[in-house]
Amino acid sequence: MDLTTIKNPSFLKNKSIEELELLSEEIRKFLIQQLSETGGHIAPNLGVVELTIALHKVFDSPKDKFLWDVGHQSYVHKILTGRANEFSTLRQFKGLCGFPKRIESEHDVWETGHSSTSLSAAMGMAIARDIKKTKEYIVPIIGDGALTGGMALEAMNHIGHEQKDVIVILNDNEMSIAPNVGALHSILGRLRTTGKYRWAKGELEGVIKKIPGIGDKLSSTSKKLKDSLKYLVTQGMFFEEMGFTYFGPVDGHNYEDLFETLEYAKKTKGPVLVHVLTKKGKGYKPAESDDIGTWHGTGPYKVESGKIIKPDKAPPAWSKLVSDTVLKLALKDERIVAITPAMPVGSKLENFQAQLPDRIFDVGIAEQHAATVAAGLATQGMKPFLAIYSTFLQRAYDQVLHDICRQNLNVFIGIDRAGLVGADGETHQGVFDIAFLRHIPNLVLMMPKDENEGQHMVNTAIKYDDGPIALRFPRGNGIGVQMDDQLKEIPIGSWEVLREGSDAVILTFGTTIKMALDAAEKLEKENISVKVVNARFIKPMDTAMLNDIFKNGKPILTIEEAMLQGGFGSAVLEFASDHNYQNVRVDRIGIPDLYVEHGDVDKLLDEIHLTMEESVKKIREMVCNK
Amino acid sequence: MDLTTIKNPSFLKNKSIEELELLSEEIRKFLIQQLSETGGHIAPNLGVVELTIALHKVFDSPKDKFLWDVGHQSYVHKILTGRANEFSTLRQFKGLCGFPKRIESEHDVWETGHSSTSLSAAMGMAIARDIKKTKEYIVPIIGDGALTGGMALEAMNHIGHEQKDVIVILNDNEMSIAPNVGALHSILGRLRTTGKYRWAKGELEGVIKKIPGIGDKLSSTSKKLKDSLKYLVTQGMFFEEMGFTYFGPVDGHNYEDLFETLEYAKKTKGPVLVHVLTKKGKGYKPAESDDIGTWHGTGPYKVESGKIIKPDKAPPAWSKLVSDTVLKLALKDERIVAITPAMPVGSKLENFQAQLPDRIFDVGIAEQHAATVAAGLATQGMKPFLAIYSTFLQRAYDQVLHDICRQNLNVFIGIDRAGLVGADGETHQGVFDIAFLRHIPNLVLMMPKDENEGQHMVNTAIKYDDGPIALRFPRGNGIGVQMDDQLKEIPIGSWEVLREGSDAVILTFGTTIKMALDAAEKLEKENISVKVVNARFIKPMDTAMLNDIFKNGKPILTIEEAMLQGGFGSAVLEFASDHNYQNVRVDRIGIPDLYVEHGDVDKLLDEIHLTMEESVKKIREMVCNK
Repeated sequence: MDLTTIKNPSFLKNKSIEELELLSEEIRKFLIQQLSETGGHIAPNLGVVELTIALHKVFDSPKDKFLWDVGHQSYVHKILTGRANEFSTLRQFKGLCGFPKRIESEHDVWETGHSSTSLSAAMGMAIARDIKKTKEYIVPIIGDGALTGGMALEAMNHIGHEQKDVIVILNDNEMSIAPNVGALHSILGRLRTTGKYRWAKGELEGVIKKIPGIGDKLSSTSKKLKDSLKYLVTQGMFFEEMGFTYFGPVDGHNYEDLFETLEYAKKTKGPVLVHVLTKKGKGYKPAESDDIGTWHGTGPYKVESGKIIKPDKAPPAWSKLVSDTVLKLALKDERIVAITPAMPVGSKLENFQAQLPDRIFDVGIAEQHAATVAAGLATQGMKPFLAIYSTFLQRAYDQVLHDICRQNLNVFIGIDRAGLVGADGETHQGVFDIAFLRHIPNLVLMMPKDENEGQHMVNTAIKYDDGPIALRFPRGNGIGVQMDDQLKEIPIGSWEVLREGSDAVILTFGTTIKMALDAAEKLEKENISVKVVNARFIKPMDTAMLNDIFKNGKPILTIEEAMLQGGFGSAVLEFASDHNYQNVRVDRIGIPDLYVEHGDVDKLLDEIHLTMEESVKKIREMVCNK
Repeated sequence: MDLTTIKNPSFLKNKSIEELELLSEEIRKFLIQQLSETGGHIAPNLGVVELTIALHKVFDSPKDKFLWDVGHQSYVHKILTGRANEFSTLRQFKGLCGFPKRIESEHDVWETGHSSTSLSAAMGMAIARDIKKTKEYIVPIIGDGALTGGMALEAMNHIGHEQKDVIVILNDNEMSIAPNVGALHSILGRLRTTGKYRWAKGELEGVIKKIPGIGDKLSSTSKKLKDSLKYLVTQGMFFEEMGFTYFGPVDGHNYEDLFETLEYAKKTKGPVLVHVLTKKGKGYKPAESDDIGTWHGTGPYKVESGKIIKPDKAPPAWSKLVSDTVLKLALKDERIVAITPAMPVGSKLENFQAQLPDRIFDVGIAEQHAATVAAGLATQGMKPFLAIYSTFLQRAYDQVLHDICRQNLNVFIGIDRAGLVGADGETHQGVFDIAFLRHIPNLVLMMPKDENEGQHMVNTAIKYDDGPIALRFPRGNGIGVQMDDQLKEIPIGSWEVLREGSDAVILTFGTTIKMALDAAEKLEKENISVKVVNARFIKPMDTAMLNDIFKNGKPILTIEEAMLQGGFGSAVLEFASDHNYQNVRVDRIGIPDLYVEHGDVDKLLDEIHLTMEESVKKIREMVCNK
């Protein structure tokens, strides 16, 4: 069938299993083709084709509510709810979002991006339903990786306690983004290998009753016995202990099994966990055989060869540069230990893993724990490197503030994907970190102008032993500068003049330096001479240079690819106020008070007027008004 | 013995059980007497007298490391490590800290305050130990309540997976601060009621082997069988599933049992969980019989009568005012649901609980989950009231940003204990919230000048349906103003002139308004006329009034009991910059870039120069310099 003719999932109700299998094939073909052009989260979506179809057949969306945890596995759901025709715009500016989006469809009832939120939201919806006395099913779909996130466990604890009717679909593909870690993972492993598909309570109890004498010998109550035997047969005890009725494991690519189990689940009172086994990348060989997570999310690729299309000769990726430099230092410095919350591939820690396997720890999707493990290490004289994306560091805000910085511990936080990240959009933009870190005492925060300065900053961070230090760096690749052989230390709090000028000053750092230099160049042609400063330490700032600049009295423009409110420009204003430089004009550009959507970074920058042109305009205004 | 003669815990090594029992009695007497004068966390500490003594006898601190989760139960540890003579200064300015403090003693290896961090820190220390190849024991002591915090579960998952040698002491008093909630709680309840104290692996296996035929009938592998039977006998399966060897439950007031089990634990490889049952308040009748948490932490009290000393006639407590006003509205508005992360008493939700038991949810120590439950509720048209302390809201930063505000959901966040909190100190000061909330799009943030405005703001928040809205209010009581009978709505973003003046302007809100009015009064005598504005909306600000003020051109002082960096004053500077008012002098006072210690709030304010005198000085300088 033509998938773009689908308006809503009601057409599934009368389909036979054979027809659904055909549909699955069509959806897979569609996804493989479409995503080869746009890129996207191909493997997770190929894994949930049957599961999503089954859910939409058995339940009645949007009355019944699907909550897609993390949400990058919602493409099939988007197709079934009438959005196939928008897939050519996937993750592009003003195009289809790569995550559930309430504005797109009434079938998207909960927006995700960050992991492990769906169970808590489901609990909220269940409470609302029960107060309003309506009857809908609430169905969060959560991966085995996301289950290790603390808030998912907080939610299970609460749902189990309150015995709310929530049907949790555990989409177990044995791998979240990277291969999974943790005790929970081995519990799931044991469940998987039992080979028992579903258990029926009645059947089990029958078996138990037939065993003579066992109750007397081992237990004084039949309840205990039943619990124990149930464990023997089902091994779903972990979830049962948490108060859930456990069904599974179910073959997530077998419609008959899925329908039967989901119908069972619908009839069960109280919280249910349906353990579904799926294969990431199912139906597309290159993605199926991936065991490290390359095909979790990709750019465009060649369908036939399964070759991911990459630019010919790119400068080193920031993540790789940082992680490899840490590794280089770690080989000579036993204090260094790397911590990643489930992003060993994204953070390019493969070399570290290969060369120092005992000094790297993937803690699972558990940013809070990751930060405090680092703090614990630092109390013992170690030098932990916490590799974490800017957007996910938000989860560890309190741990950074309360555990790391309050105790002034020598933790090196590598903040990856700082600034706009593009296609992943709103939930993943790394634009809040300056605003949420700058007010934390004791923390040093820096951002390099290029990859060469980046490697020196890594060295600086490792050598620094007066407390916590964070290095933010952007998504993507360096700009292709010459790399020094010898690592240097950059004096903490020192800025660098990149270009002299006498009419105005631009203070900026990282990715926006090019914008500043281009603006200066352009203004030079108008006989406006602009000084450009690499304000590489966001905290502490270079107060000596700031005093000079302010005393000079020329207007100042700050540029940052980060939130304006409470950001770097704000720090400059605070400096001016504290030192009574209010007569000097300071203007700021950066990210305004809104969530920046998905799309090409350049287009996003245009949209929010964070551009060379705007910089030129601002400076021109300030200089000419003077 | 004279407890103040204790220098370190080595004196315990040769003590008999009888002597230790005598010591326990002396410590209890000492605590009951001392805390009756200073106030403090009496019940938690009375509960762990024997446990703490046993730990210090069996282990060898500071080589072996104790990590006191939350940390308010570390008083006995402080006594045993030579700090008894400082107890008269407990929780007072420059006095003994109510939590572990590394600067106080080498026996305090990990500082706490917020819950559930100890297991992660222990994991970090264990990694460090194994890299350094030293041999110390690492012993986090965590309460049953703290175990429901997501990061504790993240840590268990990771420790279980890595099979690190960590001895977790689960201090189970059946109640955290409030009575516990959650599925974990009922698991612990089942463990408690088995009546089995400790199990010996060998013994159990012997029993299993003697049962004929059971393996054939129920399971194909002996491993499975063993696991299952172990569960039958021990019921510690939850922890075993997580990869821990489980010992318990142990009577936490019986030295013989404690010693035996702790010695067992020392000999066990891999992670161990020792489940210790203790009685909160043990040995002091008023505290023992408390079942809602009144004696968790108190002010001074009369030892004989167990009467907590309270001021005669105090204005209403802020928490009570807010919660009771929400209740009043909830009785007429079914959309309102209250959520508390384990603080029903602290947040004074008792009346709500009594009158609308189906519309209030205590989710346990689980701030992340609490925030996202509220978000889930709001998606369904409900109006959740999230009652949370400022300091604990830090844990939910990402959930507020990513789930609540990004989806622009109608959640009402009641931020309790905003500003300095006094005796609890560094870990509990509610001074970061403005800086970490102000840059979040869509959020309205306000603070009332008094309890009457407070009730109107509650009403305003409930009526507001354009997105999330937060009301911050201080610890303690109102100022005793007349309360209006009718609730009003305050226009969003509207400020209020409290006093006219022509030479300077003070912009402030909440607790510091009195300081501002006093300063204005004082300056009046010097013929400096100061306008004082109640800047009750921190976001959005009253831009019309700001424009007027800036156009008028008089110097402005902002005052806030919150971090200066990225705070309210910073917002005013940003406004000035955005509107090109740089020629107007703005000065700010607030909390500088440091963690504010514990002690009487007035003394703390003096220490950081957040005073009326400083306000007067700043304004005088600005006005006279003009």
